Amino acid sequence: MKRSLGAKTFVYPAPVLMVGTYDEYGRANLMAAAWGGVCCSKPPCVSIALRKATYTYTNLLTRKAFTLGIPGEDQLREADYLGIYSGRDEDKLAALGLTAVKSKRVDAPYAEEFRLVLECELRHDLKLGLHTLFVGEILDVMAEDDILAADGKPDLAKLKPLVYAPVNRQYHAWGDRLGKAFSVGMRKD
Amino acid sequence: MKRSLGAKTFVYPAPVLMVGTYDEYGRANLMAAAWGGVCCSKPPCVSIALRKATYTYTNLLTRKAFTLGIPGEDQLREADYLGIYSGRDEDKLAALGLTAVKSKRVDAPYAEEFRLVLECELRHDLKLGLHTLFVGEILDVMAEDDILAADGKPDLAKLKPLVYAPVNRQYHAWGDRLGKAFSVGMRKD
Repeated sequence: MKRSLGAKTFVYPAPVLMVGTYDEYGRANLMAAAWGGVCCSKPPCVSIALRKATYTYTNLLTRKAFTLGIPGEDQLREADYLGIYSGRDEDKLAALGLTAVKSKRVDAPYAEEFRLVLECELRHDLKLGLHTLFVGEILDVMAEDDILAADGKPDLAKLKPLVYAPVNRQYHAWGDRLGKAFSVGMRKD
Repeated sequence: MKRSLGAKTFVYPAPVLMVGTYDEYGRANLMAAAWGGVCCSKPPCVSIALRKATYTYTNLLTRKAFTLGIPGEDQLREADYLGIYSGRDEDKLAALGLTAVKSKRVDAPYAEEFRLVLECELRHDLKLGLHTLFVGEILDVMAEDDILAADGKPDLAKLKPLVYAPVNRQYHAWGDRLGKAFSVGMRKD
């Protein structure tokens, strides 16, 4: 028997994404966002939901491009910092000693230190309420050699992306493999 | 130094969501979706991206409502099954022995066996390409008592939601806590 908890945003897990944009003066900024992910395979697209109050919100609408850097476990402090402070008040990359690199494909920067980076062009913005949903087309993915597996795809055990639990606001590591998708649920007959 | 991997949908992790809808005849259906998550806090909204080819796609546009059930580790087989087979060909709930319950708030069913369920009304649909992005407003969340912590919120250790790695198509458990968000990144001064 279930009980009603009210209208709550209880979905787990969320990713931890470092959104890279330039402001109107060409200054690089990064912010952490957890509400986002892939939303189309062809063309490859990602969505991120941002509040209007964020510095990135205005940058995105102005420059029509962004990057998504995926931090590893060893970049937990940086990732969290980028979600606490605003680029309106300081140069967050400088404060963290991160190196801004201009994307070759889109009008947005990323931090060299994040080992996997998606380069995206803004395609849609949909105002929902406190948050606006931004959809970007992924034009390229940049990766460090040392996170790639033999098949050329990222190796989860090397990348070690963060797993976020929104309700209790905790960062987690990845746990044990439980099974292969499109496989463990196959009919036995 | 980074290398280009091309335009790939490399974002980790993704949730594992059981999308519940009624078809035009009032038959309950569930499908697994990994591309989705929270996209607004006020009003509370979730997005899910679906291919037009899915049975759920048509159901959603017809009934304008859906539920999202969050399966636990012990429901791995059911969750995967619901992502492999189509409600067009069979009654998946019957095949898995799941119990369809009509939501009190929206025109959609959920499976009683999933311990956390979001009840949503469709607000937007945005065609992106192969996938369409659906945004629903969360009207209520239903939960079993045995997954709740003392504070009335879901307890991750009891709920044990699945963590999905899209690129290698693996289900994972949650790993160790690494730190508290909006905390580990605070300035020390």
